[in-house]
Amino acid sequence: MKVSIGAKTVGTPTPLWVIGSYDEAGRANIMTAAWGGICCSEPPCVTVSLRKSRHSFESIIKREAFTVNIPNRAHIRETDFAGIVSGTDTDKFEQSGLTAVHSEVVDAPYVAEFPVIIECRLVKTVELGVHIQLIGQVMDIKADKAVLGENGMPDLIKMDTVTYDSGQRKYLGMGEKFADAFSVGKPQGQPDIGH
Amino acid sequence: MKVSIGAKTVGTPTPLWVIGSYDEAGRANIMTAAWGGICCSEPPCVTVSLRKSRHSFESIIKREAFTVNIPNRAHIRETDFAGIVSGTDTDKFEQSGLTAVHSEVVDAPYVAEFPVIIECRLVKTVELGVHIQLIGQVMDIKADKAVLGENGMPDLIKMDTVTYDSGQRKYLGMGEKFADAFSVGKPQGQPDIGH
Repeated sequence: MKVSIGAKTVGTPTPLWVIGSYDEAGRANIMTAAWGGICCSEPPCVTVSLRKSRHSFESIIKREAFTVNIPNRAHIRETDFAGIVSGTDTDKFEQSGLTAVHSEVVDAPYVAEFPVIIECRLVKTVELGVHIQLIGQVMDIKADKAVLGENGMPDLIKMDTVTYDSGQRKYLGMGEKFADAFSVGKPQGQPDIGH
Repeated sequence: MKVSIGAKTVGTPTPLWVIGSYDEAGRANIMTAAWGGICCSEPPCVTVSLRKSRHSFESIIKREAFTVNIPNRAHIRETDFAGIVSGTDTDKFEQSGLTAVHSEVVDAPYVAEFPVIIECRLVKTVELGVHIQLIGQVMDIKADKAVLGENGMPDLIKMDTVTYDSGQRKYLGMGEKFADAFSVGKPQGQPDIGH
């Protein structure tokens, strides 16, 4: 028997992302976001939703670029901080001690200390209500060698990355890998498929 | 020093969702999706991306409704199965042993056995490439009492829910809660803020 808990934005793990952009003055800025995810395989795209009032919003619209910086547990304080203060009156890189690196692929800065960063060109915006969706085409992903699996792709466990529980307002670490996708539920004789 | 790994859809935790809908024949169907997330706080909305070729796609467009069913670890086989076979020629509820319940809020079925389900009215579609984004307004969330925290909201740990690592094609459990959001990085004297 289930209970109704109303129309809310809870009950599912979300990513914990730090979005990088340059503001009008050319200053590197970051903000934390959890309303986002992968949204297309080809072209590879991600979506992140921002309120229009956020300092980063105009920055991303004007430069048509942003980075998605995936934090690890070691940088949870800096990540949380970037979601609390506003870039309007705070240099968040300076205050947090994080290092801004200029992307050579898009007109946005990324966070040197984070294990994986996704460089995006803004390709679409979608008005939804208090949040606007920014759709970014992934131009490149850069990762610390130490967090790559044997297949050369990032490994969330090696990254020691973080999930956000919006219902409990808590940050969670990754648990253990317990099953192979496109495999554990496969009926006998069925070929592998992709997304 | 970071290495470039190209334009891909890897490096971030994604949700693992099972999307419920009725097809043209009125049959309850489910499919697994990881390209999705929360995308707006007010009105509360979620986004999930599907390929047009998926059996569920036309179903959702026609009924303008879908459910997001959040699996737990105990149902990983059924969840993986629903992403491997097609509803065109398989009754996935029957084959998996899961129970379809007709939502009283939207014209779509939900999965009785999963701890949290989100009932959505389709409000927008966005063409992105091989995937189309389906934006659903959250009309209600239903949850098993046992997975609610003291604040009455779902708790991802109690749910024993799952994240997907697309780079490694693995399912991961939730790790432990290790920090409070909007708190751990708060400068002294700063008030709490929301999303």
